[in-house]
Amino acid sequence: MPTLSVLHGPNLNLLGRREPELYGRTTLDELDASLIRQGADLGLTVSCAQTNDEGALVGLIQDCLGQRDALVINPAAYTHTSVAVRDAVLAIRDRVVVIEVHMTVPSGREWFRQQNMLADVVHGRIEGFGADSYGLALRAASALIASRGD
Amino acid sequence: MPTLSVLHGPNLNLLGRREPELYGRTTLDELDASLIRQGADLGLTVSCAQTNDEGALVGLIQDCLGQRDALVINPAAYTHTSVAVRDAVLAIRDRVVVIEVHMTVPSGREWFRQQNMLADVVHGRIEGFGADSYGLALRAASALIASRGD
Amino acid sequence: MPTLSVLHGPNLNLLGRREPELYGRTTLDELDASLIRQGADLGLTVSCAQTNDEGALVGLIQDCLGQRDALVINPAAYTHTSVAVRDAVLAIRDRVVVIEVHMTVPSGREWFRQQNMLADVVHGRIEGFGADSYGLALRAASALIASRGD
Amino acid sequence: MPTLSVLHGPNLNLLGRREPELYGRTTLDELDASLIRQGADLGLTVSCAQTNDEGALVGLIQDCLGQRDALVINPAAYTHTSVAVRDAVLAIRDRVVVIEVHMTVPSGREWFRQQNMLADVVHGRIEGFGADSYGLALRAASALIASRGD
Amino acid sequence: MPTLSVLHGPNLNLLGRREPELYGRTTLDELDASLIRQGADLGLTVSCAQTNDEGALVGLIQDCLGQRDALVINPAAYTHTSVAVRDAVLAIRDRVVVIEVHMTVPSGREWFRQQNMLADVVHGRIEGFGADSYGLALRAASALIASRGD
Amino acid sequence: MPTLSVLHGPNLNLLGRREPELYGRTTLDELDASLIRQGADLGLTVSCAQTNDEGALVGLIQDCLGQRDALVINPAAYTHTSVAVRDAVLAIRDRVVVIEVHMTVPSGREWFRQQNMLADVVHGRIEGFGADSYGLALRAASALIASRGD
Amino acid sequence: MPTLSVLHGPNLNLLGRREPELYGRTTLDELDASLIRQGADLGLTVSCAQTNDEGALVGLIQDCLGQRDALVINPAAYTHTSVAVRDAVLAIRDRVVVIEVHMTVPSGREWFRQQNMLADVVHGRIEGFGADSYGLALRAASALIASRGD
Amino acid sequence: MPTLSVLHGPNLNLLGRREPELYGRTTLDELDASLIRQGADLGLTVSCAQTNDEGALVGLIQDCLGQRDALVINPAAYTHTSVAVRDAVLAIRDRVVVIEVHMTVPSGREWFRQQNMLADVVHGRIEGFGADSYGLALRAASALIASRGD
Amino acid sequence: MPTLSVLHGPNLNLLGRREPELYGRTTLDELDASLIRQGADLGLTVSCAQTNDEGALVGLIQDCLGQRDALVINPAAYTHTSVAVRDAVLAIRDRVVVIEVHMTVPSGREWFRQQNMLADVVHGRIEGFGADSYGLALRAASALIASRGD
Amino acid sequence: MPTLSVLHGPNLNLLGRREPELYGRTTLDELDASLIRQGADLGLTVSCAQTNDEGALVGLIQDCLGQRDALVINPAAYTHTSVAVRDAVLAIRDRVVVIEVHMTVPSGREWFRQQNMLADVVHGRIEGFGADSYGLALRAASALIASRGD
Amino acid sequence: MPTLSVLHGPNLNLLGRREPELYGRTTLDELDASLIRQGADLGLTVSCAQTNDEGALVGLIQDCLGQRDALVINPAAYTHTSVAVRDAVLAIRDRVVVIEVHMTVPSGREWFRQQNMLADVVHGRIEGFGADSYGLALRAASALIASRGD
Amino acid sequence: MPTLSVLHGPNLNLLGRREPELYGRTTLDELDASLIRQGADLGLTVSCAQTNDEGALVGLIQDCLGQRDALVINPAAYTHTSVAVRDAVLAIRDRVVVIEVHMTVPSGREWFRQQNMLADVVHGRIEGFGADSYGLALRAASALIASRGD
Repeated sequence: MPTLSVLHGPNLNLLGRREPELYGRTTLDELDASLIRQGADLGLTVSCAQTNDEGALVGLIQDCLGQRDALVINPAAYTHTSVAVRDAVLAIRDRVVVIEVHMTVPSGREWFRQQNMLADVVHGRIEGFGADSYGLALRAASALIASRGD
Repeated sequence: MPTLSVLHGPNLNLLGRREPELYGRTTLDELDASLIRQGADLGLTVSCAQTNDEGALVGLIQDCLGQRDALVINPAAYTHTSVAVRDAVLAIRDRVVVIEVHMTVPSGREWFRQQNMLADVVHGRIEGFGADSYGLALRAASALIASRGD
Repeated sequence: MPTLSVLHGPNLNLLGRREPELYGRTTLDELDASLIRQGADLGLTVSCAQTNDEGALVGLIQDCLGQRDALVINPAAYTHTSVAVRDAVLAIRDRVVVIEVHMTVPSGREWFRQQNMLADVVHGRIEGFGADSYGLALRAASALIASRGD
Repeated sequence: MPTLSVLHGPNLNLLGRREPELYGRTTLDELDASLIRQGADLGLTVSCAQTNDEGALVGLIQDCLGQRDALVINPAAYTHTSVAVRDAVLAIRDRVVVIEVHMTVPSGREWFRQQNMLADVVHGRIEGFGADSYGLALRAASALIASRGD
Repeated sequence: MPTLSVLHGPNLNLLGRREPELYGRTTLDELDASLIRQGADLGLTVSCAQTNDEGALVGLIQDCLGQRDALVINPAAYTHTSVAVRDAVLAIRDRVVVIEVHMTVPSGREWFRQQNMLADVVHGRIEGFGADSYGLALRAASALIASRGD
Repeated sequence: MPTLSVLHGPNLNLLGRREPELYGRTTLDELDASLIRQGADLGLTVSCAQTNDEGALVGLIQDCLGQRDALVINPAAYTHTSVAVRDAVLAIRDRVVVIEVHMTVPSGREWFRQQNMLADVVHGRIEGFGADSYGLALRAASALIASRGD
Repeated sequence: MPTLSVLHGPNLNLLGRREPELYGRTTLDELDASLIRQGADLGLTVSCAQTNDEGALVGLIQDCLGQRDALVINPAAYTHTSVAVRDAVLAIRDRVVVIEVHMTVPSGREWFRQQNMLADVVHGRIEGFGADSYGLALRAASALIASRGD
Repeated sequence: MPTLSVLHGPNLNLLGRREPELYGRTTLDELDASLIRQGADLGLTVSCAQTNDEGALVGLIQDCLGQRDALVINPAAYTHTSVAVRDAVLAIRDRVVVIEVHMTVPSGREWFRQQNMLADVVHGRIEGFGADSYGLALRAASALIASRGD
Repeated sequence: MPTLSVLHGPNLNLLGRREPELYGRTTLDELDASLIRQGADLGLTVSCAQTNDEGALVGLIQDCLGQRDALVINPAAYTHTSVAVRDAVLAIRDRVVVIEVHMTVPSGREWFRQQNMLADVVHGRIEGFGADSYGLALRAASALIASRGD
Repeated sequence: MPTLSVLHGPNLNLLGRREPELYGRTTLDELDASLIRQGADLGLTVSCAQTNDEGALVGLIQDCLGQRDALVINPAAYTHTSVAVRDAVLAIRDRVVVIEVHMTVPSGREWFRQQNMLADVVHGRIEGFGADSYGLALRAASALIASRGD
Repeated sequence: MPTLSVLHGPNLNLLGRREPELYGRTTLDELDASLIRQGADLGLTVSCAQTNDEGALVGLIQDCLGQRDALVINPAAYTHTSVAVRDAVLAIRDRVVVIEVHMTVPSGREWFRQQNMLADVVHGRIEGFGADSYGLALRAASALIASRGD
Repeated sequence: MPTLSVLHGPNLNLLGRREPELYGRTTLDELDASLIRQGADLGLTVSCAQTNDEGALVGLIQDCLGQRDALVINPAAYTHTSVAVRDAVLAIRDRVVVIEVHMTVPSGREWFRQQNMLADVVHGRIEGFGADSYGLALRAASALIASRGD
């Protein structure tokens, strides 16, 4: 069964507690449980992790090499500032499907969220659908893994 | 049954004939037929249109007012240059779900594709999955229509 | 009797239906009827047209050449993006009085509305007075036509 | 009878003496006299003042608070550089109608005249009609005062 | 006999009537007739069209696919603003010789004419020679078609 | 007893009357009286002045030379635009402690408030605490005067 | 008794050892001890922590939620680069008073210290007073906590 | 005998007291006395004035109209920020020789001194020679007045 | 018989040896011989020169004054950086036809080739046709010389 | 024997596994072993460490203070984004020789690699020689330590 | 007797032949003869040279080292582009007085003349007085040499 | 025996005479002699040249084609401004190893030294080690020649 890693970047551990009118009332644990279920329905083994740390996120991305078929990543703040996260994605993208997700549309917010360090190295991007952004990404990843397997 | 309009912007009529390694070999007619089928599976009545013309696109967007529950739009080149298309989306977004799709990730291409006139006025964005970007958007629209109906 | 053309750019056909708190509840037809009456009071034959299309707007501007004494134009979105509209105004401005109007003050809105492609080629500009911007422009045009006739 | 203050910024005291091909041959005293007459015709008590001084202009704007129904201001050079003038307008705009006028279209001139510190805090703007810009502003102010009174 | 399309962008229908000191007194009809004659002398079947409309221009460019050996295009205002025109050229350039012409040197004019959306996707550019720019382009196209045929 | 001058820049004379939700309801006279009392408690002779005028503010700053131990200045709008005020501070800073205060955090407001002409020539900055910004500055000045005296 | 967290960002562990002419000779331990004493005098329970790590700093900020009444933070280098730290402050600012402090005035130094990611989300800022910046911040926080309690 | 006005801008009243290593130890009174003597040697009636005030400087420049043959002006800080001073110079430059002087080379200092609002409207510029900049300007003005008289 | 100078800028002496896939295999000597022949066919006496040196190129351009009817110049790298070459062209353009040629389209290459110091001072530009760019320029020059002679 | 620390930044742990055509097939362990040997040949005690973490890298740099004579650092992604790493280098550079190395030339790659936060605070830079960049740096460091010892 | 070199940059050899309305009708030889005479009157031995060549200009500047007391240089086009000329001036400025002259005010012309590579390394600048700029510079140099000799 | 050319750009002929605290007291002749000796030790035939002239430098670079195995170049000022030098390096880099050296770290100096026209076309860069930068480059070149020979 194909495997997929879901990585949540900084401050996403506050999900459900921070700005619920923007991010909803689902907690990260509830979201992860739901993603594992949705993954199972799609025939995917899903594992989830969250970190506030740029270096740790780099490590978690690298760990996909040879161990995961796909990565669904919400880099949160690091989307806009991290060359290190970009370099890690660059290092795995030939062998791992990488999909970037956001719960809101970041480029529609403050000016510094206009800059995206990842857009040209991921395989696809889904943003603005709240927790559903992740679910759509699982589905998209599933299709991409299948087409790669051809 | 909820209704949804799919609008394709300039040069998408060449789909399947232009740069197949980038956009695939499916023609626009085949894509539209597939979207109508996928919509039906999701309980959506889908209609499709394409135009190369900025003014015509503005009109097609306006036509959704009071006639469609959702709009899935690939504005192609007008994504980056059209204030008129943006103003039209702005005029309908309170009453129509609007999702922007792209087959590739535009901001990963030439510099002038970095500027997006729509990102802060649409409800969600899906990009990079080829023809599947549309399919994912139908699914996302379906969920958003349902949650609006609550 | 001097003649004057009023041209409305993209999305102004939604007047009265779009964001009434910003643009008021008068429809475009009502506005045009009022302008024709106001023009008559000033001794002007006024005709009105609206289009969402950049190319059609260019054509309507060109049509003033030799047929109208003045043009009152609200280019809406094309104010900020259209070199073609500018070139058309440039082509007629020696023989036709051209006044740019806006119902709001565009440069007080989003950043992309800071750029104005027309300001240095029109004879005058009136903005921020809602539908009254047009009425003031008729009056200003009337005076300019008279002074040109001297 | 509603009251209205007309304020002229720096170098406008040279009116009629400076670049007459650009600004006409009317002197500031003649213009003020004409505006008082036009105001009377519109049922407005008009008073006029000119200053070259940024701080004095700030004071004259503040003086409108509770003493004038409207302000017609040609900030001249301070349009482009003065945060202090902007702050003064900001302080009165909820209680006084503020209209910015210019005899020419400043943004059609040198690059530093592209920047406008006031456009997003005034209620309307009229530019390019020479001395008539003021007359149109009186008329516009009269209408705005009336509609506020509703 | 090789075929070649000449496309004129917005406002070029005014040729001979607009700013003759800049663009000469030849009308567009006279220019087209001359180009057809010059083409015949070079062994080329030349057809000509003009449009003020961005979308129509996109369509006319697309029509060259499989029907013309070369395209000589003066995109006029759209040179500087149209991603859609660029995308259309991009779609045909592998199979059609594309030469951009201008009667003046646009980058020597207003700042917004510095930006050229087409320069890196056309095969060659000729500018500054008035109506002769087109004639030189026919000659250049003829040579390029010949060398492609090798 | 050490002496300290408090200088308020343009529009601060409206304190308590302008945007009370932002600046509070204390008037400038009340604030000055409070600062004189707080100064006395700290062993400082405090005097206060306000001006809307850039040139007058320059003069008041210069007057500190040889007459005051410290200057607490809220340059308001001139923070962002005045090289003259900066030059005056530069002329006294070797002999007078200079502390810049703001009631709000200006760089968190409009873009033109991002530019600060003084930050690199004052000894310290306190912003965002409303009227308390001044009180904290008195305390900070008192400590700096004491440490200079060492 | 209200509680307050003091957080020191990267390289502040070198305090007293690095550039003493700029930062003084007090070590971080001595500073923290002094702040705990000053806090006690103000009726505040103060705890202190330092980290070089962006992710750890994010976590320490999040920990204030529900556990501290105020946060005094010197984000050092992360002031200028960290969207993650900003997002963490954004997540707590409605329930925790947040004051940014710096020992020097950063914007008076290298160009990259001009950019501040936090200024518009903190409640107040104090900079340039060396170790006293912290002491003033305790005092300011104490007052803000009191006024919030009203 | 031709007449010439010397105008000193803000903070120049501190000459001899401020940064003597940069500006020398001569006071403004001594400088003015010397310039009057040097002017007399050149056959010029020289009068001198200083102001810290932008508006007053504008007035002093305007006063040259019809009363002075030449103006030697050191606008100091207003060189870089004042559109009003520029407009005043623009108003007199056809009838009065205008020479800009600086004691140092401003564009060799802080970034905001790179911008010069006057350079393209004065007749000549002399900078970097300390008090001698003025003396050289008198000489240059004398020659220009003579050549104008031809 | 009219005379024409062809000037080649830096590195063009390597023609045929450098990047033949970009510039072809013709050497500079062969190109010059061909241009002399083509010139003869057009009734032009053509002479050719190449230099790597900015100063020498300036001298060669100046030499056209009074000695040549036209100049065809490929300034190569100096197109983008040389104010001196521009000034030399400016000095001769009233009396000599000047046409800029490039073998490729420079603005379609690295960013620093976007800047063109010559475009607004030459009479025409031809780029992208390899060695044929020169031949087309001879033809264009011949026509311009003829029309000047009228 | 002098001591030297080699620090590798984020993603360098993938050396030999990531893009071997760019970075070669040597693993990080092999590289470190080789550097220890090369150091021994130069009379240097070399120790090596790698981290993906900005904060940890800051700590490792700080640890050189008083414990190492030189630091050879490849900050990888943090070269372009980290003010914290810069501040750490700034804190040790008076007492430790610091040499920046890169295996490729970063400024020859994506635009965001043009910005270098370290270049003006390190003692020397070596880039583009693959693994040899480190070896050359050891040699350079050895010479600099020797000359410092003089 | 002190010695002084006058250096003229590119295209100044055309003086008197190029744009006489801008630069006058005096030739370079006449100007040089006049400067030698004026120098003699001031007790200076003046020698003059002109070159179009950046490298030659660098050499001529270097030659002043140990051989001239002062350099009066009009770098013409190289003012705006040459780091090499700047570096040469930097190398001599401690031992040779360096004065930059221009006949017009360059920063009042095209945008690329706004950038000045020399302003912060020369001792003084004189511009806008035509040939008299040089004469004033001789006088200024004479004074500076004298004051240095003190 | 492999051959290597060392090229020194403008002003390096002053080595040992200019700013010795920055560049040391070794003269260029001494440096060249040392490099020839060091080259011999590495089995390289080294020849050296210096020029102040951009065009001459271009020629010297071209001369390496087919005559040298490697080029060590310190382009000095031309590093930042010369497209011609870049183009010359581009023309030889496939057949000649090219290493850029600087005695200081230029990007750590004035802003205009941030721009490097060569970094993306050379094989390696070494900067900041004074005269040793050259020695390290010889060693690096020697290794690169060897690896190319494989």
